[in-house]
Amino acid sequence: MDLLHSITLGDVLTEHRRGNPVQTALVCGDLRISYAAMDARVNRLTAALAARGVGAGDRVLWLGQNCHRVLETLLAAAKLGAVFCPANWRQTADELAFVIGDLSPRVVLWQEREIGAAAKAAHARDSGGAVWIQHDAEGKDGYESLLATGRDEAPPEVVEPASAVLAMYTAAFSGRPGAALLSHTGLLLQALVISKIQDVGRDYVYLNCGPLFHIATFMTTLATFVWGGTNVFTPRADAEELCRLIAAERCTGAFVMGPTMQQMADANRDGRFDLTSLRSFRAAPAWNAMTSEDTSPWGRRPGGYGQTEVGGLLTLAALGLGATGSHGRALPVTQVRILDPDEREVPAGEVGEIVARGPTLMHGYHARPEESVRRRAGDWHHTNDLGRREPDGSLSFVGPKTRLLKSAAENIYPAEVEGCLRQHPAVLDCAIIGRPDREWGQRVVAIVVRKPGKDASAEELVEHCRERIASYKKPRAVEFVDQLPRRGFAVDYEALDVQFGGGGYPGEPGRRG
Amino acid sequence: MDLLHSITLGDVLTEHRRGNPVQTALVCGDLRISYAAMDARVNRLTAALAARGVGAGDRVLWLGQNCHRVLETLLAAAKLGAVFCPANWRQTADELAFVIGDLSPRVVLWQEREIGAAAKAAHARDSGGAVWIQHDAEGKDGYESLLATGRDEAPPEVVEPASAVLAMYTAAFSGRPGAALLSHTGLLLQALVISKIQDVGRDYVYLNCGPLFHIATFMTTLATFVWGGTNVFTPRADAEELCRLIAAERCTGAFVMGPTMQQMADANRDGRFDLTSLRSFRAAPAWNAMTSEDTSPWGRRPGGYGQTEVGGLLTLAALGLGATGSHGRALPVTQVRILDPDEREVPAGEVGEIVARGPTLMHGYHARPEESVRRRAGDWHHTNDLGRREPDGSLSFVGPKTRLLKSAAENIYPAEVEGCLRQHPAVLDCAIIGRPDREWGQRVVAIVVRKPGKDASAEELVEHCRERIASYKKPRAVEFVDQLPRRGFAVDYEALDVQFGGGGYPGEPGRRG
Repeated sequence: MDLLHSITLGDVLTEHRRGNPVQTALVCGDLRISYAAMDARVNRLTAALAARGVGAGDRVLWLGQNCHRVLETLLAAAKLGAVFCPANWRQTADELAFVIGDLSPRVVLWQEREIGAAAKAAHARDSGGAVWIQHDAEGKDGYESLLATGRDEAPPEVVEPASAVLAMYTAAFSGRPGAALLSHTGLLLQALVISKIQDVGRDYVYLNCGPLFHIATFMTTLATFVWGGTNVFTPRADAEELCRLIAAERCTGAFVMGPTMQQMADANRDGRFDLTSLRSFRAAPAWNAMTSEDTSPWGRRPGGYGQTEVGGLLTLAALGLGATGSHGRALPVTQVRILDPDEREVPAGEVGEIVARGPTLMHGYHARPEESVRRRAGDWHHTNDLGRREPDGSLSFVGPKTRLLKSAAENIYPAEVEGCLRQHPAVLDCAIIGRPDREWGQRVVAIVVRKPGKDASAEELVEHCRERIASYKKPRAVEFVDQLPRRGFAVDYEALDVQFGGGGYPGEPGRRG
Repeated sequence: MDLLHSITLGDVLTEHRRGNPVQTALVCGDLRISYAAMDARVNRLTAALAARGVGAGDRVLWLGQNCHRVLETLLAAAKLGAVFCPANWRQTADELAFVIGDLSPRVVLWQEREIGAAAKAAHARDSGGAVWIQHDAEGKDGYESLLATGRDEAPPEVVEPASAVLAMYTAAFSGRPGAALLSHTGLLLQALVISKIQDVGRDYVYLNCGPLFHIATFMTTLATFVWGGTNVFTPRADAEELCRLIAAERCTGAFVMGPTMQQMADANRDGRFDLTSLRSFRAAPAWNAMTSEDTSPWGRRPGGYGQTEVGGLLTLAALGLGATGSHGRALPVTQVRILDPDEREVPAGEVGEIVARGPTLMHGYHARPEESVRRRAGDWHHTNDLGRREPDGSLSFVGPKTRLLKSAAENIYPAEVEGCLRQHPAVLDCAIIGRPDREWGQRVVAIVVRKPGKDASAEELVEHCRERIASYKKPRAVEFVDQLPRRGFAVDYEALDVQFGGGGYPGEPGRRG
C-alpha cells in the first residue's frame, strides 16, 4: 500500500500525541485523559487485544453504554486494522445474541451496570468463542487491568485507510439488522465536512450523551477527535447530570433531543448550572435563556438526508439555503443520482431512488454478501430511499422505497402519494396500494384514516393530489378505514392488499432495485 | 479501481452541474458562467483535448495569466486523468523553454496579451510537437472555437483519485525547477481543511488576483470550487481593477499583498468603490475602514508552514492558538515528524528536518525519478526544511536546509541566481543574500568576486540576470569583494549577512506561505 499518502484514525491519534499532548482528549466520570495519555492507553489496549487474537479484519464488540472506552477501543481496533462495533445496549438478550452470532467478534467488552443481565444471557448463548471482558469490573478482570498487560508501543501493523474500522447495525430494509462497514477514509471525510458545518474545532467540547451506537452521535464525536477537541462522556441522557457536566466542562456541543431539553430546563429552573457555553438550537424560551444560540451553518439549518450506510449524512440542509429541496445538497465529497427502477437517471422534479458514490459510503454489510452486492449495483450505493432533485439542484428526501406500483409504464412510489395525502387537513393516516388493472397494469388505491370530526370526500382527496403531484400518481379510488393494520410501527401492506384487492406489483413477489 | 468510493475533481464538477446548476461558478471580464454551463464547457474542452491526443497522464500547459479558463482546463484535464500545469507567466523565453522541454506537454494554451513575445520565442524552440493554441485568439484558432469542436458529453474515462491532476513548478532545492505532482484526493482534502479554516462556503466569492501558478492562491480557488462558491478572475493585480471587481461582484475573499492593499486604499480614497464585502486582515487604517475584518480562524492567525510539495499547507497557525510554536499544528489529515540526518525522530525542542505523511502530499516530481525517490525516503515526504516540535506539541519552521529569500511572496533561491551570475564571463565567484525590505520583505543582493583582469559593472551584472531569469529574481544591489568568506567549502552566508546587512529571511520569525 501507499504508506506515504496514508492516513488512518490511528494515525490521527498518533499525531495528536505529538501535536496536542497536553490537550484534554477524554473526560469520563472523574477521569481526564490527555491526548498523550490517550495514545499510550490505546497502544496498551492494542497490544492486549492483539494478544487475545484480534488481528486485521477481526471484530471487537462493545456491549456497554457511553464511555471514553468506546473511543479508545475504536482507536485500538483502528491501529490493528480491526473493526469496532458499538452495539445498541437497549436490546434484549435475544437481540444481543443475534448480533453476537452475526458479528462473530473476537473480543466482547461488556458492562455489568444496568445491562448486566441481558449481556450475561447473551454471553451464555455465545458459541463463537469470543473473549468476554467486563469493562466496568474492578480488579484483575477489568478493562484497566487489560490495559496494564499491554505495552505502550505503536503497533507494527500497516492499516489500509480504505479498510473498514467501524461497524454500525441498522435495521433499515431487509427485516433483520445488518452491520454497515465504514472505513477510516470515510469517517475522516465525514468528520471534516461535519466539523465545517457544525463549527467543530480544537476548542470544541462535545458532550457524548446521545447513543454512540448511532452514527448521528458518533460523527460529531469523531469531528471533535479529528481536530483535537475534547470528548466528554456520560452513560445516558439524565437531565440533571447533563446540566452538571455542561457547566463543569464548559461543553460547547451535545446531542440533545427536544424532550431532554425540556427536562434540563426544568432541572435548571433555579439557574444553578451555567449552561451558556452550550451552542444549541433555539427551542423553548427557558432553554434559550440558559444556552447560547448555535450560529453554525448546522445551527441555522440542521440535518439533511442520511443513513448509517452513507456514513452519516449524504446531503446537508445547510447547503440548501434558499433552495426548494427540503434536504439541501450533497456533501462535496459525494455524488448523488436519482434513478428509475431500470437504473436510468430521472429528470429533475421526478421521484426515484437516491443512489450515491463517494469515499464516505459503506463498504457493504458484514456477512451479507448478496445484500452488499445488490446495494452497490453499477458501482452506485443504492439507498433504498426515494428522493427528488428539484429544478434548482437541491434534493428532497421523499420516503423509503419499500414498495413500488406501476401504472401505464409509470413508476409510482406509495411514499410520495402518501406524503401528499398527509398534507390534507382531514387526513390522519393513509396508505397507498395498487390494484391489478388489465389496461394499465395497476391502479392507485388510497386507504385513508380521517381525523376525528373531519370530513373529506374521496373526490376531494383525489383532487388534492391531482393539484400537487403528477396526475398519473393520484388515487383512482379511496377507501376509508378507522385505522391501518400495522406490524410494530410499520403499516402492514400485505394485509391491506388482501383486504382491498391489491396486487400486480412489478417484480412480484419480491421488490425491485 | 473502486469506483463506488471514488471522488475526483471532475466528479465534483459533475455533481455541481446537478446540485448547483444556476449558481455562478466563474466570472471573468464580461463572462458569467453557471456551474451547469461550466460543466458543459469543460465536457466540450475535454473532448477537444482528447481529440488532440491528450489522455491519462499527459500534460496540458497553461501559458497565460489568470483567467476562468485556468479552472476549466484543470477540470478538463481532471476528467481525462491528465495533468494540468499553470506556468509562471513572468518567466523569460529561456525559462519557459525549459518548462516546456521538462514537462513535454501534449497541448499548450498560450496567451498573446502581455506575454506573447516570450511565449512565441519558447514555441519556436519547442521540439516536442505539442499542439499550441492561443487561448485569447478570436475566431477559429482560439479557445472558444476549440470548445465548439467538442461535444457536451461526460467522458468515459475512469480516473483514479490518487492520480496526479495538477503540476506546480517549484524551484525548490535542486537548483533547477521541478513540477510537484498533486493528486485529486490531495487537492480535495487540502480544500476541505482550508475551507474550514478560512470560512469558505457556497456563499464565498473569491477574487483570483494572486498568481495561479502558486498553490497558495490556488488552494482557496479550489476550496471555493469544492463548496460551489464563485471564482472571479482578473489577469493581474491592478489596484483600481481589484476595487472595481470587489465592489461589482461583492467579493468576500482575495489574495492581496500588503503593498497592493496600500495601492487599493489610495485608488479608493474617495470611497467610490464599496469594498465592505471583502473579509481581510487588518492593515492600514484606510484599508480597515473600507473592508470587513476576516474573523475566520485564518483571519485571526493566518498562514502556517507549507510548500508546493505538500499541496499548500502542512501546518496551520490557526491551530496553534496559545501555543509556543510559530507555525501552529499539522492539518488533521497529515502526520509530521522532525528527523535528524540519520532519519531518527528528534525530541521536542530540537531542530531537524520536517518530514510528513498524508494524502495531501505530492506524488513526486514530474520527470525527476531520483529526486522523487530521495524525497520519499522511508515513506515520509522530506521537505528539505528545518523545523522544531515545541514541548507543547506545536511546530516552528526554522528555515530551509538550503537558503531561501522571499520578495513580494515570491520564493527566490540563491542557488538559482548564483547559477545565472556565474555564467557571466567576468564572474569568478558569487553569493546571494537578502536584505530586509519594508515593502517587499526582502531585496536580492549579490556579492561578487570578479575574475582577475576582468571588469563588469553592477549594472551590467543586473542586466545579465534580467535577460535570463524572471525580473523579480535579479539582484537589486551588487557588492564586490576580493573573496567570499567560507567555512570549509561552503560559503559562510551568516558572515555575509553580518557584513552586508542581510536578514528578514522567511521563518525568522513570521511565516512562510
